[in-house]
Amino acid sequence: MYEVTPIGTIRTPFGEQAGTPIQPGYGDEAHGEAVLDPAFAAGLADLERFERAWLVTWLHKSGDYKLRVVPYRDTRERGLFATRAPRRPNPIGISCVRVLGVEGNVLRFAGADMLDGTPLLDIKPYSPRFDAFPDARAGWLDDEAVDRRRADGRFDEGPSGA
Amino acid sequence: MYEVTPIGTIRTPFGEQAGTPIQPGYGDEAHGEAVLDPAFAAGLADLERFERAWLVTWLHKSGDYKLRVVPYRDTRERGLFATRAPRRPNPIGISCVRVLGVEGNVLRFAGADMLDGTPLLDIKPYSPRFDAFPDARAGWLDDEAVDRRRADGRFDEGPSGA
Repeated sequence: MYEVTPIGTIRTPFGEQAGTPIQPGYGDEAHGEAVLDPAFAAGLADLERFERAWLVTWLHKSGDYKLRVVPYRDTRERGLFATRAPRRPNPIGISCVRVLGVEGNVLRFAGADMLDGTPLLDIKPYSPRFDAFPDARAGWLDDEAVDRRRADGRFDEGPSGA
Repeated sequence: MYEVTPIGTIRTPFGEQAGTPIQPGYGDEAHGEAVLDPAFAAGLADLERFERAWLVTWLHKSGDYKLRVVPYRDTRERGLFATRAPRRPNPIGISCVRVLGVEGNVLRFAGADMLDGTPLLDIKPYSPRFDAFPDARAGWLDDEAVDRRRADGRFDEGPSGA
């Protein structure tokens, strides 16, 4: 067992899961802020020259998980680790957002897919060389069963729904 | 403060940081295994049809962090959150690996850049639609100050070196 301590908080327009974009790419019009504890502000230096960054977050509203879930973009059950569903044994989210600017302890970004108040654990720069594999096969996601871009309530708090 | 509990352990040929690839893309010839606690095996269903997956890990050997570091691929200090250096306030790693196969509770992969014994926190499927931005500007990484692909000892355990 290890302990994580948030380095800040995510601010977005989304107060509840239903209606929130299910991935940053579906929320590019939605802007957000990563507000760091001021003690970490110096770590944001040089980030502004990156077009994109990973926000590593704690999905604090995600609740209990199941090992098989029906993902937002599908109609049948899949293994949890073959989905990006928010309810996970360790509810850690990775969101690739577009960097708009850095001022002091605040990173402004486009592509918000997190709930307002989501704890921030880490920020990493996006590197196409390490992170971009545009031709990678994507299993059931390539089948495109459902073109859903906004969350419904299926992973809301409460008894594990899926 | 939140608690994370490993769901398994990463097996790689790398027993120490020096000589370990600094990113999965530099270790594609190096194979590894994500060995899950058998209780989580059902969550691996459907993952085999994905070409790539994110392994979210706890960088257990990373030690104390500094907010400004000299990254492996540069010669000057950068803000920590503009680097992928392993020593971080929450030492969470994200590695995009190539899926070789799934058998029972074991995911075999290519592109190992983790130390043997690294705790595994989560697995997510790689989706080009969500994760691939091949043309994204990458700040100081685009400047290519140093073409280093293997780690030296600078982020080893002990007093924060960087």
